[in-house]
Amino acid sequence: MFGPGDRGDDVAPISHRTRTWVRQEHLNANGTTSAGSIVRWVDEEAAIYAILQLGSHRVVTKLISSAVFEAPAELGDLVELGLRVVRFGRTSITMRAEVRNMITREPIVTIDEIVFVNLGEDGRPAPHGYTEVTYARDRVPRHRMPAAGFPRPDETP
Amino acid sequence: MFGPGDRGDDVAPISHRTRTWVRQEHLNANGTTSAGSIVRWVDEEAAIYAILQLGSHRVVTKLISSAVFEAPAELGDLVELGLRVVRFGRTSITMRAEVRNMITREPIVTIDEIVFVNLGEDGRPAPHGYTEVTYARDRVPRHRMPAAGFPRPDETP
Amino acid sequence: MFGPGDRGDDVAPISHRTRTWVRQEHLNANGTTSAGSIVRWVDEEAAIYAILQLGSHRVVTKLISSAVFEAPAELGDLVELGLRVVRFGRTSITMRAEVRNMITREPIVTIDEIVFVNLGEDGRPAPHGYTEVTYARDRVPRHRMPAAGFPRPDETP
Amino acid sequence: MFGPGDRGDDVAPISHRTRTWVRQEHLNANGTTSAGSIVRWVDEEAAIYAILQLGSHRVVTKLISSAVFEAPAELGDLVELGLRVVRFGRTSITMRAEVRNMITREPIVTIDEIVFVNLGEDGRPAPHGYTEVTYARDRVPRHRMPAAGFPRPDETP
Amino acid sequence: MFGPGDRGDDVAPISHRTRTWVRQEHLNANGTTSAGSIVRWVDEEAAIYAILQLGSHRVVTKLISSAVFEAPAELGDLVELGLRVVRFGRTSITMRAEVRNMITREPIVTIDEIVFVNLGEDGRPAPHGYTEVTYARDRVPRHRMPAAGFPRPDETP
Amino acid sequence: MFGPGDRGDDVAPISHRTRTWVRQEHLNANGTTSAGSIVRWVDEEAAIYAILQLGSHRVVTKLISSAVFEAPAELGDLVELGLRVVRFGRTSITMRAEVRNMITREPIVTIDEIVFVNLGEDGRPAPHGYTEVTYARDRVPRHRMPAAGFPRPDETP
Repeated sequence: MFGPGDRGDDVAPISHRTRTWVRQEHLNANGTTSAGSIVRWVDEEAAIYAILQLGSHRVVTKLISSAVFEAPAELGDLVELGLRVVRFGRTSITMRAEVRNMITREPIVTIDEIVFVNLGEDGRPAPHGYTEVTYARDRVPRHRMPAAGFPRPDETP
Repeated sequence: MFGPGDRGDDVAPISHRTRTWVRQEHLNANGTTSAGSIVRWVDEEAAIYAILQLGSHRVVTKLISSAVFEAPAELGDLVELGLRVVRFGRTSITMRAEVRNMITREPIVTIDEIVFVNLGEDGRPAPHGYTEVTYARDRVPRHRMPAAGFPRPDETP
Repeated sequence: MFGPGDRGDDVAPISHRTRTWVRQEHLNANGTTSAGSIVRWVDEEAAIYAILQLGSHRVVTKLISSAVFEAPAELGDLVELGLRVVRFGRTSITMRAEVRNMITREPIVTIDEIVFVNLGEDGRPAPHGYTEVTYARDRVPRHRMPAAGFPRPDETP
Repeated sequence: MFGPGDRGDDVAPISHRTRTWVRQEHLNANGTTSAGSIVRWVDEEAAIYAILQLGSHRVVTKLISSAVFEAPAELGDLVELGLRVVRFGRTSITMRAEVRNMITREPIVTIDEIVFVNLGEDGRPAPHGYTEVTYARDRVPRHRMPAAGFPRPDETP
Repeated sequence: MFGPGDRGDDVAPISHRTRTWVRQEHLNANGTTSAGSIVRWVDEEAAIYAILQLGSHRVVTKLISSAVFEAPAELGDLVELGLRVVRFGRTSITMRAEVRNMITREPIVTIDEIVFVNLGEDGRPAPHGYTEVTYARDRVPRHRMPAAGFPRPDETP
Repeated sequence: MFGPGDRGDDVAPISHRTRTWVRQEHLNANGTTSAGSIVRWVDEEAAIYAILQLGSHRVVTKLISSAVFEAPAELGDLVELGLRVVRFGRTSITMRAEVRNMITREPIVTIDEIVFVNLGEDGRPAPHGYTEVTYARDRVPRHRMPAAGFPRPDETP
């Protein structure tokens, strides 16, 4: 749905798309998607994408920039999220998120910057070693996450 | 928990506080509160407060300003949200939200502006007629919301 | 919403209020708030308040007294819970809960006694040391809860 | 699990049993089943049973009598609810609910009376016409519920 | 609701029944029960029944055979699941599941085989020692499940 | 993650991929993904894809073929679903679904056939008019779904 000429394509192409079908749990009591539920979905999808770009589970949201909500979606609408990687920092990755209603073709919200920080085992920002988007294949973490802070056999330090 | 000297108390005092107990549904797969679930909670509580300030159900989130996430909370932490009304527009109300971890006393996130717009029956911005916060008593809407766009007997136009 | 002359104000003033916006998840298949979802919300909010009165996480619901449901709420209604502390026992705290529909001004349910018991590290009732409500400031637990029964570094016995 | 000699078997035998597996959504932040989530489950199961005893969808919870919580259950425990019909009123049905932990064999809570009222189309208590429990077969409502107050073709009055 | 002459009664009688009330969370955006939510409910109920037949918590779904969805249910419908044990293997148990709409009396879906495997402490298939359905009483596991792979005091190997 | 040589690539390439991060709500009480929650996710994602292939909201799951569950995923694992369109019928579309654990690289489950049927306004199977997968662009429905069976102004027949 996002063609050439989209806002932001001077920066980077959309490198990941995902869609959802609006369900009751996304609605506020007015019957339209709540701003908070949209941000939650965007943050969750962007976190998955950050993990696959940085090859690390230890990734946390550091910043979500200003979001202007243009038109909410309704029950049964299909909503599309497009993510662009706009910057690799030494310990961070920054994305732009664009959310559109596929049915009405209206924009829902654009968030210029969502910043994720890569953490080391000590819980502090750690270099991730990447400088460019991987399009062709994901950088999948090689180990499972340790359960709730307890080491597992396969993760001896 | 928010004393004098807090950021923002030159603007307006915190006029509404609410707390929550961190549950599994607020956590990401890392075991800490996700940024998105915090924003969702803040948006929902602020919407309720906006309704009670404007005396109207037809209130939608228009803008959530930039949010920097400082330290996440964990399962079982108590988290407090303080809301300040920072501006009444003709058809809008703007709040500042501060979220803190009550147990560790760490700030979690501050959102300088959450803007809600009051809508008329035609779904367009409509004047709400208020210019000041009500502290002593809520402005409770007098009518129930019509179900999903269909008039009810008790709401003849 | 609860003025002088309310049932119970010979006992103690309402010392904590919270509100919620009725969503789909609170409704039964008839489209009205289910009794069970109301009790669940009251229990959860009262537990948070008990923790902040006793300064302890190890607090469990011991008793919920008889509840008569007067009028359910509907989707989009705003519902208010008022809590009064009615008694401090040696190891317990007892509250009265009043739930009202803010829109219709109808009472939803009153529960005369919700009793929480403070537990020691051995899981048995333990004295909490308080005899009076704190209005001015919360008694916030100073430590995080240990994860699922396992000690954490910062909680050496 | 409920044998002869159980409290209440002078009144009526348990006529409906159901079990659940404790999941995260039933737990409070302490890691044990919250009182509220247990009451919610009991109310929901009892409502289904009331519908099948009265042959009517228009059934609402009127009263839940005092509940003493003896021992909570933990994640992965199997919990059993036994329901007994203790009284048929003209417009109501009263049940006793007993909840036990199947693994530890401990009682969790007993609620002596859960009263459901049958409503007519005008939303007021209406006679249901039954005086005895049906064991052999359910009294299944013959019509679907009208959607949110709107008549359907197959429900012409 | 399942009388003699039902498909499958040459194999074994239905030995467990359970019902649910269709809620919003079971619906897709079309307003009817989604196939996936029905399978999820059947799998969950069958897992509980498998645990009570094998006397073991360590039970996992191995196979769900082909499912043809005949007619979906709607909000407020009562839905019944009937389970038959059709085979005991050395390390497995196989059930047939039949789901019907109690209000419309229409079949919703039949799943001929749901196979659960019993696992030993090493996580590999282990003999369960049973060859026949227990009707009169459940085979309740005698121990709680260990939390997330960590031994508890009462479960010394 | 799915390269040449995958089972099924004689039929059609994977034409849609989506990923999820395993959360508590996907787990059974054993701490691993339940078969039912996996099927629910697959059905939901496949339904969205069917809508975008058929250009119609009125799409229902007719069949889910046999599913063998090979290895469950755990909390925090990333799971990938690949969908292939394997057949266009006159009123239906059939897909194959492959679910893999991205971290362990193990297959979780393969479902050879998920069949969706396109419905007309009368609720009966209706020709959809397509015979081939669209890769380059989605076939997005041009109208919103009518709310719960009631016509909207913009959908005059």
